[in-house]
Amino acid sequence: MMVSLVLEKVHELSLREIDLPTEVGPHDVRIAVHTVGICGSDVHYYEHGAIGQFVVREPMVMGHEASGTVVECGSAVTDLKPGDRVCMEPGIPDPNSRASRLGIYNLDPAVRFWATPPVHGCLTSYVVHPAAYTFKLPDNISYAEGAMVEPLAVGMHAATKARIKPGDLAVVLGAGPIGMVTALSALAAGCSQVVITDVIQEKLDIARTLGNIIPVNVARESVTDVVKQLSNNWGADVIFEASGNARSIAGVFEPLCPGGRVVFVGMPASTVQFDLVAAQAKEASIETIFRYAHVYPRALALLGSGKIAVKPLITDTFAFEDSIQAFEYATHMKPTSIKIQIVLG
Amino acid sequence: MMVSLVLEKVHELSLREIDLPTEVGPHDVRIAVHTVGICGSDVHYYEHGAIGQFVVREPMVMGHEASGTVVECGSAVTDLKPGDRVCMEPGIPDPNSRASRLGIYNLDPAVRFWATPPVHGCLTSYVVHPAAYTFKLPDNISYAEGAMVEPLAVGMHAATKARIKPGDLAVVLGAGPIGMVTALSALAAGCSQVVITDVIQEKLDIARTLGNIIPVNVARESVTDVVKQLSNNWGADVIFEASGNARSIAGVFEPLCPGGRVVFVGMPASTVQFDLVAAQAKEASIETIFRYAHVYPRALALLGSGKIAVKPLITDTFAFEDSIQAFEYATHMKPTSIKIQIVLG
Amino acid sequence: MMVSLVLEKVHELSLREIDLPTEVGPHDVRIAVHTVGICGSDVHYYEHGAIGQFVVREPMVMGHEASGTVVECGSAVTDLKPGDRVCMEPGIPDPNSRASRLGIYNLDPAVRFWATPPVHGCLTSYVVHPAAYTFKLPDNISYAEGAMVEPLAVGMHAATKARIKPGDLAVVLGAGPIGMVTALSALAAGCSQVVITDVIQEKLDIARTLGNIIPVNVARESVTDVVKQLSNNWGADVIFEASGNARSIAGVFEPLCPGGRVVFVGMPASTVQFDLVAAQAKEASIETIFRYAHVYPRALALLGSGKIAVKPLITDTFAFEDSIQAFEYATHMKPTSIKIQIVLG
Amino acid sequence: MMVSLVLEKVHELSLREIDLPTEVGPHDVRIAVHTVGICGSDVHYYEHGAIGQFVVREPMVMGHEASGTVVECGSAVTDLKPGDRVCMEPGIPDPNSRASRLGIYNLDPAVRFWATPPVHGCLTSYVVHPAAYTFKLPDNISYAEGAMVEPLAVGMHAATKARIKPGDLAVVLGAGPIGMVTALSALAAGCSQVVITDVIQEKLDIARTLGNIIPVNVARESVTDVVKQLSNNWGADVIFEASGNARSIAGVFEPLCPGGRVVFVGMPASTVQFDLVAAQAKEASIETIFRYAHVYPRALALLGSGKIAVKPLITDTFAFEDSIQAFEYATHMKPTSIKIQIVLG
Repeated sequence: MMVSLVLEKVHELSLREIDLPTEVGPHDVRIAVHTVGICGSDVHYYEHGAIGQFVVREPMVMGHEASGTVVECGSAVTDLKPGDRVCMEPGIPDPNSRASRLGIYNLDPAVRFWATPPVHGCLTSYVVHPAAYTFKLPDNISYAEGAMVEPLAVGMHAATKARIKPGDLAVVLGAGPIGMVTALSALAAGCSQVVITDVIQEKLDIARTLGNIIPVNVARESVTDVVKQLSNNWGADVIFEASGNARSIAGVFEPLCPGGRVVFVGMPASTVQFDLVAAQAKEASIETIFRYAHVYPRALALLGSGKIAVKPLITDTFAFEDSIQAFEYATHMKPTSIKIQIVLG
Repeated sequence: MMVSLVLEKVHELSLREIDLPTEVGPHDVRIAVHTVGICGSDVHYYEHGAIGQFVVREPMVMGHEASGTVVECGSAVTDLKPGDRVCMEPGIPDPNSRASRLGIYNLDPAVRFWATPPVHGCLTSYVVHPAAYTFKLPDNISYAEGAMVEPLAVGMHAATKARIKPGDLAVVLGAGPIGMVTALSALAAGCSQVVITDVIQEKLDIARTLGNIIPVNVARESVTDVVKQLSNNWGADVIFEASGNARSIAGVFEPLCPGGRVVFVGMPASTVQFDLVAAQAKEASIETIFRYAHVYPRALALLGSGKIAVKPLITDTFAFEDSIQAFEYATHMKPTSIKIQIVLG
Repeated sequence: MMVSLVLEKVHELSLREIDLPTEVGPHDVRIAVHTVGICGSDVHYYEHGAIGQFVVREPMVMGHEASGTVVECGSAVTDLKPGDRVCMEPGIPDPNSRASRLGIYNLDPAVRFWATPPVHGCLTSYVVHPAAYTFKLPDNISYAEGAMVEPLAVGMHAATKARIKPGDLAVVLGAGPIGMVTALSALAAGCSQVVITDVIQEKLDIARTLGNIIPVNVARESVTDVVKQLSNNWGADVIFEASGNARSIAGVFEPLCPGGRVVFVGMPASTVQFDLVAAQAKEASIETIFRYAHVYPRALALLGSGKIAVKPLITDTFAFEDSIQAFEYATHMKPTSIKIQIVLG
Repeated sequence: MMVSLVLEKVHELSLREIDLPTEVGPHDVRIAVHTVGICGSDVHYYEHGAIGQFVVREPMVMGHEASGTVVECGSAVTDLKPGDRVCMEPGIPDPNSRASRLGIYNLDPAVRFWATPPVHGCLTSYVVHPAAYTFKLPDNISYAEGAMVEPLAVGMHAATKARIKPGDLAVVLGAGPIGMVTALSALAAGCSQVVITDVIQEKLDIARTLGNIIPVNVARESVTDVVKQLSNNWGADVIFEASGNARSIAGVFEPLCPGGRVVFVGMPASTVQFDLVAAQAKEASIETIFRYAHVYPRALALLGSGKIAVKPLITDTFAFEDSIQAFEYATHMKPTSIKIQIVLG
């Protein structure tokens, strides 16, 4: 029995003991959880009790963005040892599924993903996790940064799928947490600069401080005009749609260059209008992403080498005993808040 | 002055003399036109006077699917000689544009394309054309087949963009002329079999005779069910949307396998509803195409080697003097008609 | 204890009982072996007792190109049932290795491959094999053809890596069994025609009968000249080096077009001379292959749909009790022999 | 008649008047040359009078790494105006060649490249050049840096061909000028860090100051050992061979990871020994490059945004009147010299 942050049902969280599996298999490690970030999906389960087909029917431990310390290793584990500081990939596929064998394990329908019903999350003292999905943190990376690898992995996966050529110009539509990590990933992946858009000026003001990022407030300015000026009327090589917003999606091909690539990162709430002929006129290549695969080692390498800095995105930190308060805050946070984390360690 | 089939204005065609450029530049050839196919776009200009931004404001010679015989060569032409049987790529880009230099000349906004206002087409006795866009027919390919290379090129371009792996299963949504050439191209490009859909049974009955093609009448049967059965519940590796139909587009990701590719070939009349989350859940890669580039030599190689047979698609032939009648027929043709051609030679 | 064809040591085969594992795990099937092809590597172990680092130190059952009938299924197997006619992929990786997770399971150093020391092969009555590496034969495919999937998979993997565009012209250097299946795969993968070379005219005469294949006897004719003529002096889009011959490798870039691709299929006996500057002048893209991955389902789809026919390659068949004689024959077979098979079923 | 640095014949340079074309065509610009870098190939022509098939038979103006100021524009030029600070791509293809149309204009055999016999170079007061191959410098980029774009473009082209994923680990074999710009390009293109090798410690000491670059003196240390330690025994994702050295090429696959990529940047003096089986065992993908294409705008974007800094590589500067002395120095320069430039402006 471990004290955990449990979503009992919609709008009801409690910090209480709950029975969780504790057996460490030969390929598993046990980890003392140190830091867990709150994701928009966590907040969505809290407020709505479901995301699409995933419905919270039983009490569920929250949290999937985590770092911690290895405390015990299964008999077959060779790459990790007790004391190792690590972060954990929260989705575990069936290694024998067709998708896994193809290397697209994130698309395996049998994936068990933390804090996605009915799978418990990691806002608890100790978790048991496969060693293959547990990654050592570089020495210069803190637990707080380690817990940022999960959201960063989404941006990294988007940037990887974008087939960026060095020197490309990219646009990121939407300056929420995922837009921010996508912009950082696109810069690390070779873009010379990234235009980021939003209608909340505070978000753009933060984005401006993160590197070669040009903020555009689309309430006041046309992103297409900005891109034309930056690209000698050619258009952006890559557009990342990170807002999930229907209007943003409707205009997504406008700033794109002929033969350019679009990556849909944000998930809209329903079907969307799409200007297919505009895409065809430019022969747009479009990629869609679902979580990530094979990204953690590369994200950690870029954090460790200093090419990506996520510290500025960690704006609010709560103690584990204040977890419910943290979720309350997350439901109506300030525009200058980006990532809220809960510290257990 | 050459006798040509001229679209005077909406709904008014005449077969009359018109002044066309006749100077053969150093890199040009003069061609005696032999056979010209009628495309849906020709019919659309005839019935509506415009396609999108392209409006017929002056009398315009029709036709862009052509074959013929070289009768004169410019001084710098080395690859062709009078008497050569050829077909012609109808879109001529500016070779110095950024798009052309990148190898995506079909996306050059300066492209001049036959029978796209204000550029005259090729339903006339002689045309002057750049040698670089004029291709010798293999000896075993007729003028009628040569005039099919243009529509075939659309299907070939789609199949090329689809990055087909040998043995893939593909679906083509829509069994019109472009759906048919896309299915033929997908088979030639490595698919083990192609499922083709339509609601007109006559089209499907023709498709069934063209090779490893499985027709599905979606008025009576679910294409997703058929694909599941063929693929052991995995899904199709590639979907070609060749109908431009809104409902077809709305469901395009349903029969797709995880990590599969979708190519949008058909152009819808307006913006379309799109189930983006369904695409994301499978990490669909989506390609869009605009005409074609670098396809003619490869299409001719496949015709010449017998791997693609287009003869069954040529269902109706008219003499040049009956051109107007041919267009009249094209506006209300039988479901068993696929391609109508006009013979001048 | 099962009767098996055992390589006792160099040059010594016996058909005798040997102790083999018989336990069917939850994800395994037991298969009654029907047909097993003899591969050049089998013959090499017989004649030399080793291939590179793999040395036969204990008696080893031979054979890895197999088809058969499922007779028993593990408790977790859902896709197969007793009576299913199947063929088997002979290399089993560790599903948790880094290579396997990336989808390149053939590169996992822990792969256990039939009849590669110290792993026993399949020239025995019954084998136990993971269901995930056991594939149902289409109804129209015989056991003999099923046992050809293994060598065909090598050609298919090469053709897949070649990123063939429909209508490409390919060259296969070497008309041995692997050259033949590579040519068939390249045609199925979209090539309009394939030039195949050898110095043994009998092999070329057989190749000529297999489809759009142009045989070139390089003892008498220059493959570069033939390619130039076929390609209007441009060069071949893809070259498959399937001979492993040093002289062939030395000239491999000569018939290649600018920007073309080369796939090294054959393995030379030692390091080779390589004209790197010739490759650079054309910006050749070079792929190397090691066995295959993810190919069996696609190979079976192409066999089932009739796009690849391997029957003409099966030239010699022996009964199981004549296995030793079959190997004897394999060491000095006629130039018109291509694939020798042993039938157990 | 313009004063130019002329290679009269092997070992004989003179600074003298020579007759050069001066007509500015409609698509051309005239440029006052400001800075010209000396390339290894310039020095090679000076010392040997030839590189491979390119032999200096007539007096030839030297130099191809140039920046300058536009002083006159042809009638059709719209993107440039007098006064613009620019750099120039030295190879001009035939826009109608098959290679150019495919977008691989660097592979056009008809390319005319500055200071490659019989084409004059740019070590002269004014040059006439196509506007399409003339690129504006960002305001924050000096003429000296602008003249570095040409060598940088080689490294950028290599990094582009390498299909780097963000966070990859790369190795650059050889710390000469091209090795240095390749390392900078690989970092800008997404590598987390780059291992660079050489046997000259001074070069490695400079490389160490340029970013996330790990120098390895292969006279004292094994690059494979360093890579194993950095990659948890997996290997480097990408190897750039930038030395052209036979021994370096022989071992190029050793530090590579399974499924990794190798790019051959350096050109060896003759054919080389190649361990093909080592490549096959890892299914290495190998790219070769020849100069570059489509790289200048992206190189300038990365210089302008500060993601690549080339200033530390410009170690020696001479006035135009000291050009001969500059070449003399270049033939026996110090190990701490990297790039020598001549200033005309």
